[in-house]
Amino acid sequence: MFNKLKEHCGVFGIYEHPEAANLTYLGLYALQHRGQEGAGIVSSDGHKLRVVKGTGLVADVFTEENLHSLKGSTAIGHIRYSTTGESTLNNVQPMVVDYADGTIAISHNGNLVNTQVIRDSLEDQGVTFLTSLDTEIIVNLLARSGCEDFLEALVYALNFIKGAYSIVIMNRNELIGVRDPYGFRPLCLGKLDGAYILASETCALDLLEADFVRDIEPGELVVINKNGLTSYKPFPSKKESFCVFEYIYFSRPDSDINGLNVTLTRRKLGHMLVKENPVEADLVIPVPDSGIGAALGYSEASGIPFAEGLIRNHYVGRTFIEPKQSIRHFGVKIKLNAVKSLLEGKRIIVIDDSIVRGTTSRKIIKMLRRAKAKEIHLRISSPPTKYPCFYGIDTPTRQELIAATHQIDEISRYLTTDSLAYLSVEGMLEAIKPMENRVCAACFTGKYPIKFPTSKYRQLDLFDR
Amino acid sequence: MFNKLKEHCGVFGIYEHPEAANLTYLGLYALQHRGQEGAGIVSSDGHKLRVVKGTGLVADVFTEENLHSLKGSTAIGHIRYSTTGESTLNNVQPMVVDYADGTIAISHNGNLVNTQVIRDSLEDQGVTFLTSLDTEIIVNLLARSGCEDFLEALVYALNFIKGAYSIVIMNRNELIGVRDPYGFRPLCLGKLDGAYILASETCALDLLEADFVRDIEPGELVVINKNGLTSYKPFPSKKESFCVFEYIYFSRPDSDINGLNVTLTRRKLGHMLVKENPVEADLVIPVPDSGIGAALGYSEASGIPFAEGLIRNHYVGRTFIEPKQSIRHFGVKIKLNAVKSLLEGKRIIVIDDSIVRGTTSRKIIKMLRRAKAKEIHLRISSPPTKYPCFYGIDTPTRQELIAATHQIDEISRYLTTDSLAYLSVEGMLEAIKPMENRVCAACFTGKYPIKFPTSKYRQLDLFDR
Amino acid sequence: MFNKLKEHCGVFGIYEHPEAANLTYLGLYALQHRGQEGAGIVSSDGHKLRVVKGTGLVADVFTEENLHSLKGSTAIGHIRYSTTGESTLNNVQPMVVDYADGTIAISHNGNLVNTQVIRDSLEDQGVTFLTSLDTEIIVNLLARSGCEDFLEALVYALNFIKGAYSIVIMNRNELIGVRDPYGFRPLCLGKLDGAYILASETCALDLLEADFVRDIEPGELVVINKNGLTSYKPFPSKKESFCVFEYIYFSRPDSDINGLNVTLTRRKLGHMLVKENPVEADLVIPVPDSGIGAALGYSEASGIPFAEGLIRNHYVGRTFIEPKQSIRHFGVKIKLNAVKSLLEGKRIIVIDDSIVRGTTSRKIIKMLRRAKAKEIHLRISSPPTKYPCFYGIDTPTRQELIAATHQIDEISRYLTTDSLAYLSVEGMLEAIKPMENRVCAACFTGKYPIKFPTSKYRQLDLFDR
Amino acid sequence: MFNKLKEHCGVFGIYEHPEAANLTYLGLYALQHRGQEGAGIVSSDGHKLRVVKGTGLVADVFTEENLHSLKGSTAIGHIRYSTTGESTLNNVQPMVVDYADGTIAISHNGNLVNTQVIRDSLEDQGVTFLTSLDTEIIVNLLARSGCEDFLEALVYALNFIKGAYSIVIMNRNELIGVRDPYGFRPLCLGKLDGAYILASETCALDLLEADFVRDIEPGELVVINKNGLTSYKPFPSKKESFCVFEYIYFSRPDSDINGLNVTLTRRKLGHMLVKENPVEADLVIPVPDSGIGAALGYSEASGIPFAEGLIRNHYVGRTFIEPKQSIRHFGVKIKLNAVKSLLEGKRIIVIDDSIVRGTTSRKIIKMLRRAKAKEIHLRISSPPTKYPCFYGIDTPTRQELIAATHQIDEISRYLTTDSLAYLSVEGMLEAIKPMENRVCAACFTGKYPIKFPTSKYRQLDLFDR
Repeated sequence: MFNKLKEHCGVFGIYEHPEAANLTYLGLYALQHRGQEGAGIVSSDGHKLRVVKGTGLVADVFTEENLHSLKGSTAIGHIRYSTTGESTLNNVQPMVVDYADGTIAISHNGNLVNTQVIRDSLEDQGVTFLTSLDTEIIVNLLARSGCEDFLEALVYALNFIKGAYSIVIMNRNELIGVRDPYGFRPLCLGKLDGAYILASETCALDLLEADFVRDIEPGELVVINKNGLTSYKPFPSKKESFCVFEYIYFSRPDSDINGLNVTLTRRKLGHMLVKENPVEADLVIPVPDSGIGAALGYSEASGIPFAEGLIRNHYVGRTFIEPKQSIRHFGVKIKLNAVKSLLEGKRIIVIDDSIVRGTTSRKIIKMLRRAKAKEIHLRISSPPTKYPCFYGIDTPTRQELIAATHQIDEISRYLTTDSLAYLSVEGMLEAIKPMENRVCAACFTGKYPIKFPTSKYRQLDLFDR
Repeated sequence: MFNKLKEHCGVFGIYEHPEAANLTYLGLYALQHRGQEGAGIVSSDGHKLRVVKGTGLVADVFTEENLHSLKGSTAIGHIRYSTTGESTLNNVQPMVVDYADGTIAISHNGNLVNTQVIRDSLEDQGVTFLTSLDTEIIVNLLARSGCEDFLEALVYALNFIKGAYSIVIMNRNELIGVRDPYGFRPLCLGKLDGAYILASETCALDLLEADFVRDIEPGELVVINKNGLTSYKPFPSKKESFCVFEYIYFSRPDSDINGLNVTLTRRKLGHMLVKENPVEADLVIPVPDSGIGAALGYSEASGIPFAEGLIRNHYVGRTFIEPKQSIRHFGVKIKLNAVKSLLEGKRIIVIDDSIVRGTTSRKIIKMLRRAKAKEIHLRISSPPTKYPCFYGIDTPTRQELIAATHQIDEISRYLTTDSLAYLSVEGMLEAIKPMENRVCAACFTGKYPIKFPTSKYRQLDLFDR
Repeated sequence: MFNKLKEHCGVFGIYEHPEAANLTYLGLYALQHRGQEGAGIVSSDGHKLRVVKGTGLVADVFTEENLHSLKGSTAIGHIRYSTTGESTLNNVQPMVVDYADGTIAISHNGNLVNTQVIRDSLEDQGVTFLTSLDTEIIVNLLARSGCEDFLEALVYALNFIKGAYSIVIMNRNELIGVRDPYGFRPLCLGKLDGAYILASETCALDLLEADFVRDIEPGELVVINKNGLTSYKPFPSKKESFCVFEYIYFSRPDSDINGLNVTLTRRKLGHMLVKENPVEADLVIPVPDSGIGAALGYSEASGIPFAEGLIRNHYVGRTFIEPKQSIRHFGVKIKLNAVKSLLEGKRIIVIDDSIVRGTTSRKIIKMLRRAKAKEIHLRISSPPTKYPCFYGIDTPTRQELIAATHQIDEISRYLTTDSLAYLSVEGMLEAIKPMENRVCAACFTGKYPIKFPTSKYRQLDLFDR
Repeated sequence: MFNKLKEHCGVFGIYEHPEAANLTYLGLYALQHRGQEGAGIVSSDGHKLRVVKGTGLVADVFTEENLHSLKGSTAIGHIRYSTTGESTLNNVQPMVVDYADGTIAISHNGNLVNTQVIRDSLEDQGVTFLTSLDTEIIVNLLARSGCEDFLEALVYALNFIKGAYSIVIMNRNELIGVRDPYGFRPLCLGKLDGAYILASETCALDLLEADFVRDIEPGELVVINKNGLTSYKPFPSKKESFCVFEYIYFSRPDSDINGLNVTLTRRKLGHMLVKENPVEADLVIPVPDSGIGAALGYSEASGIPFAEGLIRNHYVGRTFIEPKQSIRHFGVKIKLNAVKSLLEGKRIIVIDDSIVRGTTSRKIIKMLRRAKAKEIHLRISSPPTKYPCFYGIDTPTRQELIAATHQIDEISRYLTTDSLAYLSVEGMLEAIKPMENRVCAACFTGKYPIKFPTSKYRQLDLFDR
């Protein structure tokens, strides 16, 4: 019954702080851009785990009253993004599990690629599943490890799974963080008032005025307990493959990941765009908000003035209902408006972070044409997105990726731009130096760091999605 | 983490009817008195199971829109009563489970007594638990049976468990109903437009204008599929032990169970009360609503007029909040009011179905005193409740049961009644003829039909609760 | 734009009690049967009025938090019943009004008959209306009185209006109660801890354990302030015309009104029914809940046993949605179920309080037929309802009143009863002695105590409704 | 009881379009930045007005279902901003009023200055008030005009009131728009598919892809009916006094008002800032979002690079609850985060639109210091805000305006900036050319275009607020 969901999320954990649940709430709040479908917090007072979960935004799920019920000085949290309509409460994390050695709570960010194989195998051994979460597979492996030691059991379980995972786990007395050996998804370590914190991005530390300690390394497992923090490297080493799209689009501009600040990196992507694809124009216009960093970089390197030619409506939310009986379709107009007074008669360079299906870009170009821009040159701060992601970014199937099936000039015609250029893979890698050899760029290159399992299920997934 | 909840619920299922989900909704609605904590429906269109669940009343959980989403011609439903505050959505049934042979949904009414032993054993074998439901144990046993045939697997699983269960199960193509070999909880079979129905009580059939076919027998398992209905008796036979409290209090007055109508049975309990404990008085007053049947019987047998001396506020609901800062405590006054004009100066016989802790009865007597009743004789239409129930009725621990620790005259003094009498066990059994040898009366006699497992867990439970 | 709504409500007020808002909340709760559409409370701390209002049940509108915000020791409340779909929050009372001499809050129960004339006249003088409430007319009259004294202004305003009104008014320092000179609607005075209370029915006093002092008299106006209670009789005397339907159906059985207890009065209506229309039968069956009192009386006088042959589902609420796509219509079955085991083969007398359109009664008779009752004799504890009410009871237009257009034998055939009899007007008056000359029975006799204004509006209303 | 609320809102109206309510919904959506407290739409089908209102965001108030109920081809809408906690549903507009000549609906943006005088006078004449809205005063004046003609009555009413108003009115057959003679608040005219539209800002027209026709002129009244649009100038001419703060802060950057585009105007404010207050630095940083336009202008004119050094959390909403029991205060950190990687060691110029109390600015400066900016120069794109606004912008009392009571160097010390400079009044007027003689800049200069009424009420207000 359960369809696999892509896990594309944010995680947070804090150990031994008197305000554990409140700080987790704020941490999730800072990570809200990583998912708006659901949120949950589990706290421990050393005896009992308590949980509050719900669908929707962090600010909707938690109330003073339910936060107050989350007693204890250790807590973990999760916010989730869901790609399908099946975002029932059942699938909201953290997952809380009873098993032979007690109770644990677990928050997972990333997407495993061999879950169907393991799930089939576990089901063949009599395991039942109540959710469609990767997490449920991990906890079942853990519970069946036969290891008496929790850490051994966890490593046993993680050795089975393949794919992207940044996981935060809590039992009654410990907080544990793990990043997969490829390091696909971010996870960083902070400290506040002596208490350790784990978070998907540094922007969560900043909100708490916590100190950034360091990134958790690929393949690293840290155990935080009354003895402090102990680091393990229990997995065979792999080529680091941090998701380059976290820099291009997904992470918040103010976060630092692997020593690189996100907005500064986007600015460099803009510099490279100028270098590779200069064009004469009057204005550089970002598609807000993700195109802003690269547009500033483009303006800086080209000397062409930056202007906010597209204004975003900040009140666009999940609840907006486009009237069904309408004779019009509003689409992206609901979110963006072109400033005619600024654009009329101008040659403009529009900067966006990527093109997926091309439908939204086409509407934006149309809107800019209505605002009477004289020339429209679209520049994309990443290479053509030709391959689906299997590690946690929500991309459609290959067939739907316009760059997978069309040449650039065809795309340009479809979008009705005067010119269109993408950044090259080399240009992108240059911009993210010194991370250039440490990223996964499979969505651009098709070079997937992890081979797919031979199961028919994944094969089907790969070609049919 | 998860504390065992008492399952005390209502179940419903219908096979191959074009309005399966709607009829299940109405069936649950008719069974609402069996639980007000949560409700759920799972439907199948032969390919996919769909689920809607929520906490609260049936009328709150379901909407036109979500009922409409429950496609398919087979459906099962569940309403739940929870004894603890942990009535999270996680614990709302039906439970939907993926396992090696597909997906099933299951609704369970009753309470198992050996779950902790099995749960411990399963956890030792690496099983994880996401809920505190007995149902999760059953499905894990089922999934680990090693049997290829679904029915065999189900029987394998049920052979492990001990206690009370009336279960409705659905897979993509079948509807299955089972009652435990003791027959603790009711389950009946009906038919509407050729479609079979399973329901906890006949009042659900009545609402649908479905025909009552028969009760499912203790230890019977019925499989309803495209071949019609097939009945199995796969368990060793046990002494039938239908919960006598279903007649006394729990079932709806209009339901027929095991050939006995509930309100007529309560009337006979009233007759027996007169026989055993006659008293001269002016009026017979029921404590509404559960005391009405026996009060009518008492009036009938004694010739003393019946009067509605306590008026119930029908708008008392779960959301009523007694103002905290109040200097008063309202308690049962919120629900009931004594009619002074009717009671003043009168000698009254008050009929209630049972006394648990005695606190509510004491308040009612006080209220009747304020209404100036001259004499108050309390008659209880069941024997003293001295033992906790382990099969699905929510009773407190022995220590809290006033009749377990006090003599009747002590209770009478505490309640401030002029006289107090309970029905004898013999009188009760006489009233329920010809079911007198087919019931469990353990809450009155301490003679539990099922021996407790030797696990320390249940032992503790037994003595400490 | 605004259509006139029938006001059919409950009112409450309390002066100088430290828990004024909480007690008002509980008082409204006890009066909930008088209206389920909306509720509101206004409190005063001597300086500022504060208000909380909402649509729905008392338990839904008020929370600990918003009750806590209602500071002050004087408060009034209102619950409303609405006959139309226009039950917007705009029309929830108490109404709070600013005018030249300060701010007042007002709760009104009853229905005026000359509002359109006054409204037209006021509009001609430039008055604007933001609601469709009679109350807004009263406050406009009050504000335009030209009287400096508040009481004089109020009496001035009330002298203009005709119809039924029991009003509770609060300004910063006073609580005022008024009943129209005919005394159509009830209003009683109570006392708790020295604080005066005004309430529609005594059941509200009972819940608070307040003492009943007396009924407010027809045409009486009481002012409660720091000088205690002062009574005025400012209106020309009229023939008392208390709504007889309050006894028959509308009031709560435990209330005492004009010295008569409601359930005892209903019992006498049952006695008279036997006297006027005896019939041989096996059982007397009430239509719950309003038929219970008369059925008990019928049983008592006839010696035929009373039985609960129709069981009511107590969870029927406003939110129940009958599935639209259903091939069935459930109607009254949702609320009531016939107990076949009790009724099969029996000659039964069914007691109901009244028949309006006849459609519900017909369904009940059909349900009893399905339960195989051998004979069904319907007895109505009031005379045929032939005329609409203009004073606050929600009755349909004459055309829709089945007794206005059909003979009793025709109605009996339509309902498919073996016999049908109503109580005579004389019988009814006999049962309510000594109130027989003090009631309005216009819905049965057409003798309206108040002549209609000559305005075309009311004429139209009278004949077309 | 009712305290005066500042009206600071958005209005919209459309005449004779088949999708009137849907388009009004979208129009309000585009105007959401003008108020987030409540929204309402009234539609007319030529016979009946229908209304939907609620508190909260446009997307929360309206549903497919309630939009569908708003039948008819003419509609007006309103979104409101409230300065006080008294934002009850009572005060949500449009207001719908019944009066002698029918029913009208009215939406008002702006703030009247002589309402208390008129209200007192009206109350003395017997008028009652159910809300605290200026609108209720206007409709009462209108209803009491004695004029038979609607337009005459409206002009009669408007001649009484003083202050800022942009009003949209609808009766069954007409749509009317008016701007006060000073033209304080914006109101523009558009056309879509032949249907006229009135809206507070052009961004609403843009979303609908409607054509901008022209601004409604100060003192102009337009009547739109089946004869098309007729323009009137019924008021004595006044010196145009458009609120300069609409350019500086309040309007959406993409709107054009009086021929000036908002973001381009802000850019010019930035140019003037450089001219008046140049400073050497490494980066220009806006306080998002209102500081962006001026910061881009500052960067452009100074050649100092623009950078997004403060990142805004887009999920900050009304429901965010800062945990009360927290030992920390988060305040502006919830909304903004400083990008340390970008700011560390840099000399930065921070651009904000205004300083009100100074508390938020101080926190932002502190945050930038924590991010290790070397020098922080704050530049404000408007003059010091020294005087409260009485025409519809929510400013606190003089005492709370930091610039009213402190010298610039004192403010700079309080904010802990290395330097602080405001734009001069002259610089501001230069930037808004050719509107320099057509604006109200009273909040900077104290030169209020409208003299205050002599009533004690306004005087008190003026000095005590």
